[in-house]
Amino acid sequence: MAFEIKAKIANFGGQLLKLEHQSIHSHPIPPVAIQSNINSPGASTKTKMALNLFLPPSSISHPPSKIPVLIFLSGLTCTGDNCAEKGFLQPHAARHGIAVVYPDTSPRGAKIDGEDDSFDFGSGAGFYVDATTEGWGSNYNMYTYINEELPSELFKQFEALDSGRVGITGHSMGGHGALTIFLKNPGKYLSVSAFAPISNPINCPWGQKAFGGYFGEENKEKWAEHDATELVKSWEEDKTLEVLIDVGTADNFYKQGQLLPENFKMAAGDKGIQVRYQEGYDHSYFFVSSFAGDHVDFHAKYLCNRALH
Amino acid sequence: MAFEIKAKIANFGGQLLKLEHQSIHSHPIPPVAIQSNINSPGASTKTKMALNLFLPPSSISHPPSKIPVLIFLSGLTCTGDNCAEKGFLQPHAARHGIAVVYPDTSPRGAKIDGEDDSFDFGSGAGFYVDATTEGWGSNYNMYTYINEELPSELFKQFEALDSGRVGITGHSMGGHGALTIFLKNPGKYLSVSAFAPISNPINCPWGQKAFGGYFGEENKEKWAEHDATELVKSWEEDKTLEVLIDVGTADNFYKQGQLLPENFKMAAGDKGIQVRYQEGYDHSYFFVSSFAGDHVDFHAKYLCNRALH
Repeated sequence: MAFEIKAKIANFGGQLLKLEHQSIHSHPIPPVAIQSNINSPGASTKTKMALNLFLPPSSISHPPSKIPVLIFLSGLTCTGDNCAEKGFLQPHAARHGIAVVYPDTSPRGAKIDGEDDSFDFGSGAGFYVDATTEGWGSNYNMYTYINEELPSELFKQFEALDSGRVGITGHSMGGHGALTIFLKNPGKYLSVSAFAPISNPINCPWGQKAFGGYFGEENKEKWAEHDATELVKSWEEDKTLEVLIDVGTADNFYKQGQLLPENFKMAAGDKGIQVRYQEGYDHSYFFVSSFAGDHVDFHAKYLCNRALH
Repeated sequence: MAFEIKAKIANFGGQLLKLEHQSIHSHPIPPVAIQSNINSPGASTKTKMALNLFLPPSSISHPPSKIPVLIFLSGLTCTGDNCAEKGFLQPHAARHGIAVVYPDTSPRGAKIDGEDDSFDFGSGAGFYVDATTEGWGSNYNMYTYINEELPSELFKQFEALDSGRVGITGHSMGGHGALTIFLKNPGKYLSVSAFAPISNPINCPWGQKAFGGYFGEENKEKWAEHDATELVKSWEEDKTLEVLIDVGTADNFYKQGQLLPENFKMAAGDKGIQVRYQEGYDHSYFFVSSFAGDHVDFHAKYLCNRALH
């Protein structure tokens, strides 16, 4: 549904909008989809969802020109606020004239047993999938929310946003979200990058817990459908795939094997994946902010100069 | 006392150090000073103090070259963490080769009655003065802590920092701190700027509450000694005073008369005070971060090119 604008905050010559809306498709949901809860066209979170939308100065000074959009998906425990406050994508987005969307990382207050018990499952840990298990399936549909409902509502309400020029990026669990959503929708997103992404969730503890809970322990086929390393294997050979990934060498989650960018890189072969290991950087927003400029510049190549495509 | 390095975080090619130390002068405090607690040479907070220190890349790549220092004083309710995470001074400090110090805004855990009762008095609200009232006088000596103890300990432990090139800035209550500490110590700081500073505390509710509590209601002479608008009146006529101040026109505290930069500007006459009213900006770190680059550039003129002086 339409967004309520809770606040407009001046920032880097543009505006950061605090938005809230009820997630629910406006068209009727087929009853069978409600029952099965499985990737139905109507699947969404059915909760109130908050997000941030940064509009660059060009959206104010030149309203008629269309503005490309970069979606930033956040990591475990975060909301859309953390990166908007600490990630420092905005000055670079302002410079290039790109809007940035910072969605939340899960439904909130869905009243599911155990929803708030873990930092890595349930609230703040939606993993950008459409859950199929009982309890989770009716609300935990972050894949459909991010890939369909949210952009569709944004383009409806904010007409300056260019639905034909959308890039996607993210941090940690959000890097997993960015990579998988990009790979599952060839041609839909013009660019993809990731900061310290969970790159092979079916082979790391965080991913195994999440996919086990959202898809069931047995449903391994479904697991693979949301694993960047599995997905990249079937990316068409003759189609280039340019991805910028940064990972800090002092990132404890990288060292613990939660991220596994090396598996993604190896599965991708010579498809143009650039994994940069940044000496001494950890997993925090101090790392994200340090390379935010490089990532926005990377996306701008694809989003701001259509002639490249 | 010496700093314990709690963490070293890679950031913008440099390092953000999380420091902690016990505030107490290492030389013996004269007993009379302990009794009176009034601006004694040994006055300090006597509590454990946490802070952040950003060291630019040049401190790592060229250890022998001396690094200028910018002190950023934070506002009400903040610690040294907020601006280090959200203020976005670091990329610009990295670019110019300037270290940035983010101290805390008050003693913590001094066990004074009412210390944690208000957001605008006591914890998080030290106002960068040496308190003279009973209860507060023994610990709330943030003026001496910032102006003497902290830099002295920093220059002792981090030898690359250049004690001859120090600038000072701050936000809100910290802007008040920056302006007053600069004005009370001619020649000690090479540059000063402020974001939405409390510029005339003796005439605003926040300042009146703080100064009443820290100096007593009757001690108006002392109040004036820590009021930027009063202090600037006695700045030597023939000495230039260049100050960069930014204030947002949508800043609620500005609208409520808590900041009064216009009084400071008027009192300064033609002394070179530049007050920029930034259309639509509020009082938050979204405002600070938007103009952080301008402020660091301003300080760099004085800190990085001694030939200018």
